[in-house]
Amino acid sequence: MEGAHPSVMERLMQTNLESTPGYTADDYCDRARTLIKKACGCPDAEVHFLVGGTQTNAVAVSSVLKPYEGVLAADTGHINWHEAGAIEATGHKVLGLPHEYGKLQASAVEMYMSDFLADESHEHMVCPGMVYISHPTEYGTLYSLEELKALSDTCRKYSLPLYMDGARLGYGLAAPGSDVSLDKIASLCDMFYIGGTKVGALFGEALVVTRTVTVRQMVTHIKRQGALLAKGRLLGLQFGTLFSDGMYIEISRNAIRMAGLLTEGLRSRGYEFLTPPQTNQIFVILDNSTLERLREHATFSIWQRLPESRTAVRFVTSWATREEDVRALIALL
Amino acid sequence: MEGAHPSVMERLMQTNLESTPGYTADDYCDRARTLIKKACGCPDAEVHFLVGGTQTNAVAVSSVLKPYEGVLAADTGHINWHEAGAIEATGHKVLGLPHEYGKLQASAVEMYMSDFLADESHEHMVCPGMVYISHPTEYGTLYSLEELKALSDTCRKYSLPLYMDGARLGYGLAAPGSDVSLDKIASLCDMFYIGGTKVGALFGEALVVTRTVTVRQMVTHIKRQGALLAKGRLLGLQFGTLFSDGMYIEISRNAIRMAGLLTEGLRSRGYEFLTPPQTNQIFVILDNSTLERLREHATFSIWQRLPESRTAVRFVTSWATREEDVRALIALL
Amino acid sequence: MEGAHPSVMERLMQTNLESTPGYTADDYCDRARTLIKKACGCPDAEVHFLVGGTQTNAVAVSSVLKPYEGVLAADTGHINWHEAGAIEATGHKVLGLPHEYGKLQASAVEMYMSDFLADESHEHMVCPGMVYISHPTEYGTLYSLEELKALSDTCRKYSLPLYMDGARLGYGLAAPGSDVSLDKIASLCDMFYIGGTKVGALFGEALVVTRTVTVRQMVTHIKRQGALLAKGRLLGLQFGTLFSDGMYIEISRNAIRMAGLLTEGLRSRGYEFLTPPQTNQIFVILDNSTLERLREHATFSIWQRLPESRTAVRFVTSWATREEDVRALIALL
Amino acid sequence: MEGAHPSVMERLMQTNLESTPGYTADDYCDRARTLIKKACGCPDAEVHFLVGGTQTNAVAVSSVLKPYEGVLAADTGHINWHEAGAIEATGHKVLGLPHEYGKLQASAVEMYMSDFLADESHEHMVCPGMVYISHPTEYGTLYSLEELKALSDTCRKYSLPLYMDGARLGYGLAAPGSDVSLDKIASLCDMFYIGGTKVGALFGEALVVTRTVTVRQMVTHIKRQGALLAKGRLLGLQFGTLFSDGMYIEISRNAIRMAGLLTEGLRSRGYEFLTPPQTNQIFVILDNSTLERLREHATFSIWQRLPESRTAVRFVTSWATREEDVRALIALL
Repeated sequence: MEGAHPSVMERLMQTNLESTPGYTADDYCDRARTLIKKACGCPDAEVHFLVGGTQTNAVAVSSVLKPYEGVLAADTGHINWHEAGAIEATGHKVLGLPHEYGKLQASAVEMYMSDFLADESHEHMVCPGMVYISHPTEYGTLYSLEELKALSDTCRKYSLPLYMDGARLGYGLAAPGSDVSLDKIASLCDMFYIGGTKVGALFGEALVVTRTVTVRQMVTHIKRQGALLAKGRLLGLQFGTLFSDGMYIEISRNAIRMAGLLTEGLRSRGYEFLTPPQTNQIFVILDNSTLERLREHATFSIWQRLPESRTAVRFVTSWATREEDVRALIALL
Repeated sequence: MEGAHPSVMERLMQTNLESTPGYTADDYCDRARTLIKKACGCPDAEVHFLVGGTQTNAVAVSSVLKPYEGVLAADTGHINWHEAGAIEATGHKVLGLPHEYGKLQASAVEMYMSDFLADESHEHMVCPGMVYISHPTEYGTLYSLEELKALSDTCRKYSLPLYMDGARLGYGLAAPGSDVSLDKIASLCDMFYIGGTKVGALFGEALVVTRTVTVRQMVTHIKRQGALLAKGRLLGLQFGTLFSDGMYIEISRNAIRMAGLLTEGLRSRGYEFLTPPQTNQIFVILDNSTLERLREHATFSIWQRLPESRTAVRFVTSWATREEDVRALIALL
Repeated sequence: MEGAHPSVMERLMQTNLESTPGYTADDYCDRARTLIKKACGCPDAEVHFLVGGTQTNAVAVSSVLKPYEGVLAADTGHINWHEAGAIEATGHKVLGLPHEYGKLQASAVEMYMSDFLADESHEHMVCPGMVYISHPTEYGTLYSLEELKALSDTCRKYSLPLYMDGARLGYGLAAPGSDVSLDKIASLCDMFYIGGTKVGALFGEALVVTRTVTVRQMVTHIKRQGALLAKGRLLGLQFGTLFSDGMYIEISRNAIRMAGLLTEGLRSRGYEFLTPPQTNQIFVILDNSTLERLREHATFSIWQRLPESRTAVRFVTSWATREEDVRALIALL
Repeated sequence: MEGAHPSVMERLMQTNLESTPGYTADDYCDRARTLIKKACGCPDAEVHFLVGGTQTNAVAVSSVLKPYEGVLAADTGHINWHEAGAIEATGHKVLGLPHEYGKLQASAVEMYMSDFLADESHEHMVCPGMVYISHPTEYGTLYSLEELKALSDTCRKYSLPLYMDGARLGYGLAAPGSDVSLDKIASLCDMFYIGGTKVGALFGEALVVTRTVTVRQMVTHIKRQGALLAKGRLLGLQFGTLFSDGMYIEISRNAIRMAGLLTEGLRSRGYEFLTPPQTNQIFVILDNSTLERLREHATFSIWQRLPESRTAVRFVTSWATREEDVRALIALL
């Protein structure tokens, strides 16, 4: 809900009147690419900068799939639910699978693929062509390294590129209990994007292709999707700033700390949670009278209506969340 | 698995060397349109002839939906499962809903729509733009008139055109217990197609638009989908034959009789069914050793693997099924 | 405007009540594939059977192109003009090039490609991904072997698969002056289709992929386009008949003879032609009063309005054209 | 090549840490909408904010066209040439028409439509569904009010919505000789966009729908195209600034003045121009040796290779162009 981290804004101001080539072909973008590849331990990767998450997902998925292929995802995956059919707009089906708190397990992919291949009429069905996951998930949960490895193994067994939507990746990397680091992601996934919009940038996502999957002519592909930013350096400047001096993870830690404070405060007051709090999204269960009272003082998302006049609501912290606001919210509850 | 009903073939032979305009603009097509509109009690309908079911569904759905809209269907709907993503190829999402033996109930649509409209972020979700049902369903079941009325009412409440896939419609109309007739379908649905391919024709489906929904330039729309048959009179000749002298329902009755014979034979031998047999598709549960033995003598589809080494298989009868073959199958079992 | 050649109809009648697997997976299709591959001198080719020309073009083009690629074609190409945007419906641009009487010359492709690659902003342009030609063309003209070789060389120089639309291929192969045979086509093109609809079949086109280009999962791809015929054997039976005993070319010869008769008759009476008559499409220039008089007696297409109250009209002969009708037409003129 | 006008940057800095709703649903966007509608004299218009030109064109065109329709445009139109097939990606054909220095005249539309409607096979052709123009054009030229009125009349005669791509609209409005004002555009076009990216913003285009054409659910439609900016207020803030105190036209005037200076300087030195200089794009013809010499000192686009070792190059001025740089360029030449 805020703009960008002050360091990002400062960088944009400093460089505002410089003249550079457009369309992410400038030196600032090149420098940011180098920093990101280094952070991922993946010097051979390709890095493309895009403006928002939905367009990044549509670009990534359609760059990999053949026309007759679809993408496997948890039923709850963002691409299956909250992106207005942007994947289908590129002609591809999202094949929804069962999930655990938003996570797609290797076993679900294994079961789908073995059933699919055993099905006598599978030539009449959409052919699974890649796997989509979100980390953190839409429920704020995180894959463990073991889960991610198992998923990557299953994907490679079936020649399915594994793609990670990292809209909130910083908050996953900064979570204290997580053993999934950027270099692990780069070695286990074939494509992923590092979210900027929700982690300190005005806008922007960095799509990393680890070269285990072949994509070609990505600039043209991105342009065709209407996703090539004219003043592309804005993306390079922002990611260059976020990936200098560990800033991307550093500012994410604030969100984790504030979410921890909120979780603890609510738990001690007896509130229950819809999913185990792990990152910066907290799904707390309120009775509806509390919810109505709260509406006047705070902004949050209604997530799910529950039986017995209760509702799960979502609170989201960020790099910009202030402790005083969290304390005020706890006091209200 | 056979060709066409002998009367259909005879008609094609008789007229083979006549010269007529192409692309369904000939007199045979016009006559067939008139017969179909009369059978539907719907003189103002538009009737378009297409070659196959998947293309008819893609044409129908994409003629109604706005780009940002999707189609509600039972999870088990043919368009969601066995048409290789033909709907998504036109840019639209199939929104799968819970079903009862393949049927989509009004309550499921009602619940989806009320949840959708109540969802604060529904502008970020695919907007439901029509409802798809199959009658008979993919499980061989039939909507009752009451169920169809309820569904139609709910669709009209939410301004959702109701579209019926009638790939096997003849077998539904000929089923003794069914109270859903062609004119009821025409008054409760906005579009539907009358299947020829599976009911006596070499190929062909008749798409009926009841004018409660506006579609325009359908010839161009059909051409663009690669679905406009050059020698269109072949469709007019076939449907003209099938809709003369009540032949469409008459030949369907054979399939129902043969399916009844099979059901009765199997039931009396203690076999169980996956879904209640109502039309020409019979889903019988076999133990796997029986299944293997049967494979050598009969053609059928494996439908679903079940616990305890059992499998649901599908037998399908048609206008061409012979009693001796059914009796032989029963004897084998 | 007629149905099928009597031998084709007879074959359909003979086999009508046989039971075979669907979707072109039957023995009749396999036999027809073998015959076609033999006729093309290309034993390693893949052969797929489809119903009509527009859908075959859309299937072929979209099976080869990456999302960001387009297809080069003569401005007058069928895909660019008379297929209602079926290629664009699959997301690809048709890049129109100058033509000579409907033919695309190697030099036009060479010029486009060298300009394209030299253009500083070509990453912002649709990337040419294949070349489409028609033989015979929409103007009834034919490529010489030399022209086809030059085109093929240029395509291979730029890694552009060459695809030939052979809707009227029989009439090209049967033309006396033509040095382009089926095996030359198979060695110079990467994909092409052999038209059945206009050359003796009720419907049907045989798409030949010569394995110099990789396409995968074609059955699923065809199904997704709504182009997989349920009773696929109808296609195998028709092509099996047409490719037995040289029938495909034999019946085409009649069209060529009748076109020759018409051309000669008109030329001797002083009529002029819009394009040099080579195959079964004759584009004759009439003054408008003659045209109006003729309308009452014959069926033809208005092709192009010309200056000085004249009009080019198209007459088309076929395997079914009778000499008496041609003589009557000449007499009328 | 620069960032944004300093006033725009200042506004972004001032508001950076404010909390607002996302997705252009904030008060800054509302205020900017009000200012734009006022400037257009069109209080009933809808205004949507998007990030870039290609995506705005794709969103606008696909919001209006039926699936079987295409968009008429000058052959040289940006959507037909330099947007990587983004329109075709939405399933629609761009129908290229002859132009005069980049302008599409009413007579060209009239001729296409009357030929189309007279064509016996027009149901097999892409149906024209709207008209696209750019103002200023890709050649830097401007429609006169008379030309625009004639075009609008022809469009209305054929029920074709008229859409104007205003990527460089400010430079057209600020051109001294132009009689086309914002309110004239709003009364003669059905949709148009006011370009921000090239006229003082970091990025952003304002799509104005004048309610003479019906578009629905535009937020969902935009989201589906991946074009809905999460921190939408950035667009509202930028357009709010540009449309306060006449700033949009005021800063455009600098580009026009600088272009005038350049034109005059070159003309007096005997240089010729490819198209008559009217706005901020100057197409000057250089001999190739001059061009090579210049490359070391200045940035420009190669536009077109010409006979006799000459080349047309494009110089573009903007709100940010400095007089000293223009003078230096003239001196170099």
